Amino acid sequence: MNNPISQIKLNELAKVAIKVGLRLEEGQDLIMTAPLEAAPLTRLITEHAYKAGAGLVTTLFNDSEATLARFKYGHDLSFDRATDWLFNGIGEAFDNGAARLAISAENPMLLANEDPEKVGRANKAMSKAATPMRKRIVEFDINWNIISYPGADWAKLVFPNDSEHDAIAKLAEAIFAASRVDLDDPIAAWDEHNKNLAEKSKWLNGQNFAALHFSGPGTDLKVGLADDHEWAGGASRAKNGIVCNPNIPTEEVFTTPHAAKVEGFVRSSKPLSYQGTLIDEIEARFENGKIVEARATKGEEVLINMLDIDEGARRLGEVALVPHSSPISQSGTLFYNTMFDENAACHIAQGQCYSKCFVDSDNISEEQVKANGGNSSQIHVDWMIGNAQTDIDGISQSGERVPVFRKGEWA
Amino acid sequence: MNNPISQIKLNELAKVAIKVGLRLEEGQDLIMTAPLEAAPLTRLITEHAYKAGAGLVTTLFNDSEATLARFKYGHDLSFDRATDWLFNGIGEAFDNGAARLAISAENPMLLANEDPEKVGRANKAMSKAATPMRKRIVEFDINWNIISYPGADWAKLVFPNDSEHDAIAKLAEAIFAASRVDLDDPIAAWDEHNKNLAEKSKWLNGQNFAALHFSGPGTDLKVGLADDHEWAGGASRAKNGIVCNPNIPTEEVFTTPHAAKVEGFVRSSKPLSYQGTLIDEIEARFENGKIVEARATKGEEVLINMLDIDEGARRLGEVALVPHSSPISQSGTLFYNTMFDENAACHIAQGQCYSKCFVDSDNISEEQVKANGGNSSQIHVDWMIGNAQTDIDGISQSGERVPVFRKGEWA
Repeated sequence: MNNPISQIKLNELAKVAIKVGLRLEEGQDLIMTAPLEAAPLTRLITEHAYKAGAGLVTTLFNDSEATLARFKYGHDLSFDRATDWLFNGIGEAFDNGAARLAISAENPMLLANEDPEKVGRANKAMSKAATPMRKRIVEFDINWNIISYPGADWAKLVFPNDSEHDAIAKLAEAIFAASRVDLDDPIAAWDEHNKNLAEKSKWLNGQNFAALHFSGPGTDLKVGLADDHEWAGGASRAKNGIVCNPNIPTEEVFTTPHAAKVEGFVRSSKPLSYQGTLIDEIEARFENGKIVEARATKGEEVLINMLDIDEGARRLGEVALVPHSSPISQSGTLFYNTMFDENAACHIAQGQCYSKCFVDSDNISEEQVKANGGNSSQIHVDWMIGNAQTDIDGISQSGERVPVFRKGEWA
Repeated sequence: MNNPISQIKLNELAKVAIKVGLRLEEGQDLIMTAPLEAAPLTRLITEHAYKAGAGLVTTLFNDSEATLARFKYGHDLSFDRATDWLFNGIGEAFDNGAARLAISAENPMLLANEDPEKVGRANKAMSKAATPMRKRIVEFDINWNIISYPGADWAKLVFPNDSEHDAIAKLAEAIFAASRVDLDDPIAAWDEHNKNLAEKSKWLNGQNFAALHFSGPGTDLKVGLADDHEWAGGASRAKNGIVCNPNIPTEEVFTTPHAAKVEGFVRSSKPLSYQGTLIDEIEARFENGKIVEARATKGEEVLINMLDIDEGARRLGEVALVPHSSPISQSGTLFYNTMFDENAACHIAQGQCYSKCFVDSDNISEEQVKANGGNSSQIHVDWMIGNAQTDIDGISQSGERVPVFRKGEWA
């Protein structure tokens, strides 16, 4: 049988990861994380990285079979363990100039049948251990990028009525389209797209709203924005001076909410795949910025465990605007993968904020981020709240309302 | 086509790695290194590790395709880079109690067509960076183990007249036989074998020779032994208290030579595969413990680069005795892999000595190791010097000669 994945487009995806996603600089080391089955893509990326003058490319593979073996056979004490030593090392590499690329390909339902209590403990231990890595990413110290590869189990979940071969082929094409590598000149297309996103950010920054008010079915949520917040989207400059595109695909503009100024009700508009579990039909109530009540029809225990990871997990670290007409949304495909689904709908994120989303972000201290209302946590988990009914008003510093979205589109 | 590798025996190999090689303890973390193609074995080992109560099992995969991409496309400056951050992290994990398992499966000739100067630089950078990991292994702080898996390119090199399928099948069977996993009760067989090796070590320790004199075609070499040296072989107790079998297979008893007391000529009896290059027909001359002249008919430049890595690389860190009748030797197979070929012939090693091979090794300081004549270096590279013609005399502290080997066998 023929390979379901076009190797020509896969090669373009690898090129876009290096040339657009990371803009890897000559001499820069690269640390890549990937599932085993994404090895064909890691090899193409490695090739393009070295062609671009990379110092040393190191890939850390993870194996979902090994993860399942842990849940099947692991001693109880295993679930509080994490590879602190590895994340410490990655933090050290970032401080020495390495860039970071992650490939997303895993089965979003990998851990769906495992004990939620053990899943929660394992996630908590991992999130805590990952702090040295996450800190440098959320503070945008280095150029980083996430792209996707059509893993077989993920493809079968997205296209359940197709054979594995056809499901992989369809998911591959969906990834290529969303990542703009099916166009004649992907790099020029990304330049154009980045320009459009920058214009939206510029308008929002000019407005300097005090809050956004989301309304729609099941949602009546006022999201206060952090003091001195700044909107970003598309290409953005890391503190190491490199302008990169962290997410591929990306359709969002986003900023930092105020951790203590979120009020009201919100309902998720798409399922959230979190660490191998699907969490669906979330309803949450915020008071003074904090989720005081949360329910889900699926994965509720994993959701609650996630919200209880630390104090900041119940507060917001990001709010992002995506029109319902975005290409990913229009494809009508539910990807069960935040990398895609968050680019098909307005969303919010529990947990850590991006220090990039502040005025003069290169020089802002952790204390100042906090004073401005920026949240901190061991997690950063986006969940989708926008759909074709979503209205958003911007509330100005003087209390006036400005239409931002109407029926899911820019007003 | 059927799988060329018996999954039943592969499972036994995984069990032997955990139960004999490592004797992994409940709650102990495990760090495994493996080539991508050995994933089927890593999964079985992961399963047996968790069944034995492992804390967390982490596998670091390496991809020979990525290595080749580096040599093909890498910027010149890439070849002086190494993953210091990763080795620092591994050192940290060992200090926190993790065990280490390595799977050997790579093509011994992977880098045979690459620029020896670049290969030498890459090896030097890697050896230097690996110090935090290597130090804890050579000082036997933790239980560790190396086993092998029949990689396709390696199999084709060993069995060049067979199809890939048959070559893999033959190499798999050779690995299983040498690793004693084709026997009814592999664990009992290892207990028996460990007992035999311990008896040889005990006899040699009782003799307390000042030196060994190797003679044979092209070889007339006097290897002075370190003061307070101790012979070891088979199972051995690491400083963390765990009795493990570091090498599977193993047929050797070995000790520490005196870094300044090796004199004469020596010729290799088998090719040496070093970091992807084959070095064949080595001839070396030692003066005051140091190689002052070295030649090879193949791979000479890589050999010289290796000997020039640091001051200690030209001196010996190990001398090991293996009878010509050892099962691996009798198989008549040249494995182009030191893990096997060193167990088919007496051998010596350039570079770092094992601090385990001293009296009261748990409490010996680095300074005392040095004062006793123990060598130090960033490398430890075994090469084979014994064959069916090898005679060895032990020279006692008072200068008397005691026959140790005659015509390749224990005298």
